[in-house]
Formats: sequence, structure tokens, C-alpha cells
Amino acid sequence: MIKLPLALLATVLAAPLLAQPAAPPPPPVVVAPWIHALRDDALANDRHAWDITEGLTTEVGPRMAGTAAEARARAWSVAKLKAMGFSNVRVETFDMPVWVRGPESAEVLAPFPQRLVVAALGNSASTGPAGVSGEVAAFDSVDALRAAPDAAVRGKIVFIDHRMTPTQDGSGYGQFGAPRRAGPTLASQKGAIAIVVRSIGTDHHRNPHTGVMSFADGAKPIPAGALTIPDAEQLVRILKRGKPVTIRLRLESTTMASAQSGNVIAEVPGRDPRLAPVLVAGHLDSWDQGTGAIDDASGVAIAAAAAKRIMDAGRPLRTIRIVWFGAEEVGLLGGLDYLARHGKEPHHAAAESDFGADRIWKVESKLGEARRDEARLIGAALAPLGIVTGSFDEADGSDIGPLLASGVPGVGLGQDGTRYFDLHHTPDDTLDKVDPVQLRQNVAAWTAMLAVTTGPIEPNARPRR
Amino acid sequence: MIKLPLALLATVLAAPLLAQPAAPPPPPVVVAPWIHALRDDALANDRHAWDITEGLTTEVGPRMAGTAAEARARAWSVAKLKAMGFSNVRVETFDMPVWVRGPESAEVLAPFPQRLVVAALGNSASTGPAGVSGEVAAFDSVDALRAAPDAAVRGKIVFIDHRMTPTQDGSGYGQFGAPRRAGPTLASQKGAIAIVVRSIGTDHHRNPHTGVMSFADGAKPIPAGALTIPDAEQLVRILKRGKPVTIRLRLESTTMASAQSGNVIAEVPGRDPRLAPVLVAGHLDSWDQGTGAIDDASGVAIAAAAAKRIMDAGRPLRTIRIVWFGAEEVGLLGGLDYLARHGKEPHHAAAESDFGADRIWKVESKLGEARRDEARLIGAALAPLGIVTGSFDEADGSDIGPLLASGVPGVGLGQDGTRYFDLHHTPDDTLDKVDPVQLRQNVAAWTAMLAVTTGPIEPNARPRR
Repeated sequence: MIKLPLALLATVLAAPLLAQPAAPPPPPVVVAPWIHALRDDALANDRHAWDITEGLTTEVGPRMAGTAAEARARAWSVAKLKAMGFSNVRVETFDMPVWVRGPESAEVLAPFPQRLVVAALGNSASTGPAGVSGEVAAFDSVDALRAAPDAAVRGKIVFIDHRMTPTQDGSGYGQFGAPRRAGPTLASQKGAIAIVVRSIGTDHHRNPHTGVMSFADGAKPIPAGALTIPDAEQLVRILKRGKPVTIRLRLESTTMASAQSGNVIAEVPGRDPRLAPVLVAGHLDSWDQGTGAIDDASGVAIAAAAAKRIMDAGRPLRTIRIVWFGAEEVGLLGGLDYLARHGKEPHHAAAESDFGADRIWKVESKLGEARRDEARLIGAALAPLGIVTGSFDEADGSDIGPLLASGVPGVGLGQDGTRYFDLHHTPDDTLDKVDPVQLRQNVAAWTAMLAVTTGPIEPNARPRR
Repeated sequence: MIKLPLALLATVLAAPLLAQPAAPPPPPVVVAPWIHALRDDALANDRHAWDITEGLTTEVGPRMAGTAAEARARAWSVAKLKAMGFSNVRVETFDMPVWVRGPESAEVLAPFPQRLVVAALGNSASTGPAGVSGEVAAFDSVDALRAAPDAAVRGKIVFIDHRMTPTQDGSGYGQFGAPRRAGPTLASQKGAIAIVVRSIGTDHHRNPHTGVMSFADGAKPIPAGALTIPDAEQLVRILKRGKPVTIRLRLESTTMASAQSGNVIAEVPGRDPRLAPVLVAGHLDSWDQGTGAIDDASGVAIAAAAAKRIMDAGRPLRTIRIVWFGAEEVGLLGGLDYLARHGKEPHHAAAESDFGADRIWKVESKLGEARRDEARLIGAALAPLGIVTGSFDEADGSDIGPLLASGVPGVGLGQDGTRYFDLHHTPDDTLDKVDPVQLRQNVAAWTAMLAVTTGPIEPNARPRR
């Protein structure tokens, strides 16, 4: 059975009967053969994205914002982008505070002594080497914690449960991420000595999902960690026995008031330097537990590989500006620095790849009413890859979020997120999770999108160096 | 297309042409309706196996041989088996040396500094808190290490790679487990300062697979660990860059010369105490990283649940003896203690569940030529569960291996091992990996097997206490 949306079904059924004059069909969208060819060559043959993803995750590995590893990643990136032939390769540095994970452990002390696997959340207070011990006060949601009297929480270790489920568009992250984002502040305000949350994730492995949080409204920092999903479920089973449960948490960490991060920028100069550039992005920093293969080595790789393919085909009308942002994970600091420096410059469009490397299933854009034909052409150029055209009034991105909010037009190439939150912010974010075939589909889609947005390519000219 | 084995195809094709007198068909195997009923009730309704698996993994958790946790597991088991109504519940203790994991870490020092995830193998020498550092000498098999000149290994840290693939019958464990079992001795003999192996497993998670090894032939103990599979693959990529690779290993551990372990035993008394009992088993101890849900809480649970279902149906002709062995993981110590105490007593049959809790797909037995009808009846009773009848000359088991080798008849109910080595000996061996539906299929098969081997049940009599 084929299911049609009801509204569409009604149209189909009603049309012959009512025989109303049809609305004029929208003008046909014709994708030029050279765009098809560029896209399909990327789909079949791209190696640039894999080379960058493999190289960055192998030769640098984890690259936590503001650390020496992130600095090595910038040096690696500058060398790589120059070697690929891009122009104007440079780093724009900025300073930032840095939180660094130390030794960490957790254990049930009573009634059933056993270890639990935990990771501190970014900006957790340090327990010091002695750790903290206390009775668990358990809640099944942030709202349940919010509704609880302070007396039920004071002096205890809060535990917040939830049950995040996978979605293709990743939309559960907003709702189910609340325990990590809002839980620590609430727990602190109610007098808790620490908090652990069920990892914001959808897997069943003993790999905790870390992530950033901050203490708002003047709340005093307390130790805050994420239990793996099997461990959170174990704690729930132990709590269900109805006896008081005490746990011990050791989450050591250190902070540096100021360290350096930076954005790495490179360009494919356009034929007309007066025209606004198309910005394509990803972020260079990663969390510390994995090698950041899907978050976001593959993202910087996809953006740069597509730009490289356009550059190798000739000279586009508009400049392509590649930005590999620093310090995304800890609060979009690279994106905010870019906005402060370049936010007043015109941008023709901005797009970011920061949702893994599984196949792109949907394209959305927010180019404005006057550029609807361009938006439709992007959709038509991507459709042969099995990509649905979604809204013409939506575009998002992490680092480019502030830029889009300031009014810059955007394109969103949405990856399939079904397994993204199995891996996100865990030790399991490693190269073996990147599927080379799906990675090439990403590059093909980005190449086609750039072919449309940067304007016709002049095949015989060479890129300016 | 239907594919027939060639030999069978030849028979089918030749039969009408040659018209030889047919061999007399084997006598029909008739499974009594009460056996069908017992089996199908277990398949639909068993809760005993889940209760034991959930209870043991939750209320005790990890239970490393010889530790206080294993002692708590014995106390838990005695209480549980008594509460279930079994008779003669007792513990047979024995002494053993104990190796206990301490803090552990690994990191690449050069050329690309980054952490690796490692776990010490059982009986590894301790590096002490300072760890050991050295250049990596890499080999893609134990044979390659064996063939290498000592000079290529001396003073270095050996790394052995391999590529284990999943099999339904688990038969790859023998071949691909060689790096763990033979590697440390070989590396030590050639003068290595330590060894790491690619985890003996088939997953792609950052969870190392531990397991026991021992230094043979007087080889001096050296630190020995297992890298997770993503980390082993990362090390291979780093090595492929062609520069010398140095790593630092910290594998701390402690040993106790003597501690106590023990086998927990319970019985369903048979109507005729002169008849040899049927032994059903699993092992109570687990590795320390997970809660030993598939290895082997589910095994002890399946064996006991089936015995419980027979007991609740009435009195079997033969005694069922349940043995939950101690200290299997560290060298079958419980099985050897049982053999020493009971090896000269007659046993009608022995069976052990120690390969997870996924569905049973094959039954094999070694009951002897004279009991072929009984073996065929077991196969017929299990066939409605989709279980293939395999060899009549094979049976195996871990703890019961020495008993079977001494001539005790055996039955082997083989679970599907396709995902077993994703989890085996890792932190990921937790309750969420046990599928309740497949667990019930196991109990159904074991119940039917016991219904056949213990002889007719007298429904109206009550079990002796």
C-alpha cells in the first residue's frame, strides 16, 4: 500500500471531478549537466574527505578545545589545506578558559557494592581525589527534580533518568538533553552535593556521553557526571529494591583561566571578488574521550572535500570560504569569534556539516523569497542522491548558528542521525564508525550544493594562488 | 534455488534409477505429549531464568573469582536456590591464587601523542604506577612473532594484531585467541618488556576484552594487555606512517597467594536414588569489567530454571544436580575441584550453559552408541524450537570439560554465538544484552533435554526436601 498524506490524497482524488483551472505549474528546474557530472564524480571517486578524516583522527587524535592537542590540530590543518592547494590559509586565534578531565570513577557503596562507569560533564566541579559520597535522590526527569522539595535533595547526589530514542533528524537532543544542560544548576540550587545523569544517548554500551554544561543563575558548581546507559539502568534496578542507595563519585578535573584556540580558514577565490563568499564549515575541536571522527573530523572533511572538487573543476564565480572552527564543543566559541570579526561582511550563504557522516537525507535552506529558484535548484541537484527537499525557511548549524541568527542566508544538509547519538561525545567516536560510501554521498551533495551557490565554474581558468 | 549437499543430491538422483533395496528406516522417535507441554510452557512463560540473571547481576554485579564479590555471589546463590525449593543446597569450597586488576592506562608517546584504551589480561605482571615505555614491535599473528629474531623484539613492547570474525558456533575463539594465550609467553621469551594484543573480539567499541593467560615454560611474567579493537586499528594506522612508534603502558595489579572460591550445588532428588544423576551447570564467577550477564549469569540461570520447571512438574526418575561453578574464568578451577571430589561417581549426563543467552541453534551429544535412541529423542524434543540435531559423538563445556574428558556422557546445547564475542570479557557484558525471548527459548530447550534424560516425571508425588 502506498500512503499519501491526506491533503495530497484529497487533491489527487478531487482534481478530475472538480476540473478547476490548474494553478500554473512552477517553472521547471533544470540542473545543468556539468553539475550532475561533478556530483556523480564525487559520489564515485572522492578520496579527499576520507583522507582528511583518517589523517586528522590518526595523526592528531582527540583535540579538546584550548589544549595542546587542538593546537596540533590547527598546525596539521594549515599544512593539509595548503597541500590541497587552497588559498589564503590562515588561523584566527582567540583566548578561552579550559576545563580538563582528570581521573574519574564511581561506585555503589550500598546496598550492592559495585563499580559504575562515569564521565564528568564539561565544567563539572572537581571532587578532588577523595571523591564525594552520598545517598542517591533519583528523578525520572528534570521537571520531577524541579518539582521536588529542597529537603528531598539537600546533601544528596541527584540522579536524573530519561529515555532518549533515536530519530532521523536528531530532534530528540533538545528535549532529552535537558538533564545534562539544566540538571546541574537545578541540583546545585536545591543543595545537592553532586549530580549524575543518564548519558544523553541512544546506545547500550559502557561508554559515557560527556558534553558541556554550565552553572547558571549564580548556582555554585558541583561535581556533575554522566553514567553510561547500562550503568544508569543498573542504578534504576538497584533503586527499585527500595533500600537507600549510596554512591561514591570521584570526578577530578582542572581548569586553566586562559588558553588559546582558533579558527582555521582557507579559500577558493572566486572570479568576481566583489561578490559575497559562500561559507562552508565544520569544527576542528573534539571531545577528549574519542578521536572525534564523526564529531567533527568528517564534517570539516566533507566541507573541504567539496570545495576542493569545485576548485579542481575550475574557477567558481563566488569565493568559497572554508572555516574549521575551534572550540565548538565548549560553547561555540569559534563561531562567536567569527561573528565578531566577520559578522558585518556579506555572505552569500553559510552551511555547516556537524552531524556525523551518515547519508544526507534532507536539504533545507533559508535563502530568502527572492532566491527561491536557487533553493529549488539545490533541491533538484541533490534529488538524484535520494535527498528530500524540505523547508525553504529553515537552516541551522552549530558554529554558524550565531551567523544565521544575524541574518546570513543558510543551507542545511541534514545527515541521517539514527545512530548519531549512539556515538556522540563518547569514547566510541572513532574512525571505524565512518562509512566511506556514505561519506562520499555527503561530499557529492555538498559539491552539488556548492556548484549551485557559487555560480558557474570557468573550466579553463586556474585557481588563483 | 534450493541447494542440496552434493552427496545428498547424488542419492536423490540415483535412487530411482538403481532401485536398490532401501535401508530399513530408523525406528520412529516419538516425543511424549507431556514433554512438548513442558517445553512450550517454558518457552511462553519462564520467569525463573530472568529472575536469576537480573538478580545476580544487579544485587552482586561483577564477581571475580576468589574475591569478596564472588563470596557474596555464593551467599546470594545459596539463598536463591533454597528459596526456589531445591534440596541439598551446599557450597564446596577450595583455595586458589587471585590476581586483581588495578589502575591501567596506555598512550602513544610518539609520533602522534594520544591515549589508547587498554585492559590488563589476567595474570599480567604489574607495571607499577610508573608504567613502562618502549618502542612497538608489531606482528600480524603469533606465528609472525614466533618467526621473528629475538633482536627485533628485545627491549620492545610487542603488539599482535589479528582479525577475528564472528561465527555462529564460536569456533573462531580457538584460532584467534592465540595472541592472548600464547603471545605473552613468546614475547617474554624473546625479551620483550611488555605485550599488547588486539582484543580477542568481534565488536568495534572502546571496550577491551580481557581474559586469562599464563606464562608457560618458565617465561618471566611481563605486563600484558588487550587494546580495544578501535585502538588496535588506530595503532595499525599510526604504525603504517612508517615512523618508530613508542607507547607507555600502565597496568597495575596485585596478587593474593591464596583466597577462597567454591562451587554452589543444589539438587532435585530423583525417585530412584540409586540411579546416576544428570548434572546441569554454569559458572558463577565473572570477569571484573562487566556484570557477567552473558558470561555466565544467564548460564547458571538457564540450567537452574530448567531444573526448577522439572521439579515443579513432579518427581523425575533421576536426580538433577545443579552446579554453579566458581573460578571458571581463571582456569576452570571449580570444574577441576568437582572432578577431584566427584569424578569417580557415575553421572548419567552432564551439560553446561556457558555461551551467552542467544537462541540455541544446535544440539549435540555424546551418550554412547547404546543410548542413541535417547540422543535422537533429545533432538526430536528440541526440533520444534528450530534446533538442529548435530553430532552424536560430540559434547563440550568449560567447567565440565575435565569431567567429559574422563568419560562422563555429555549433551551440548549450542547457543548462537554470532554476537557473543562482541561482548565476551568486556565492560559491555551487562544485563541489557540478554534478550528475554531468546533466554526463554534456552530454558525451553534445557527443560525438554532434562525431561528426556532424567526419565519420566511422576506428577503426583512431591519433591523430597
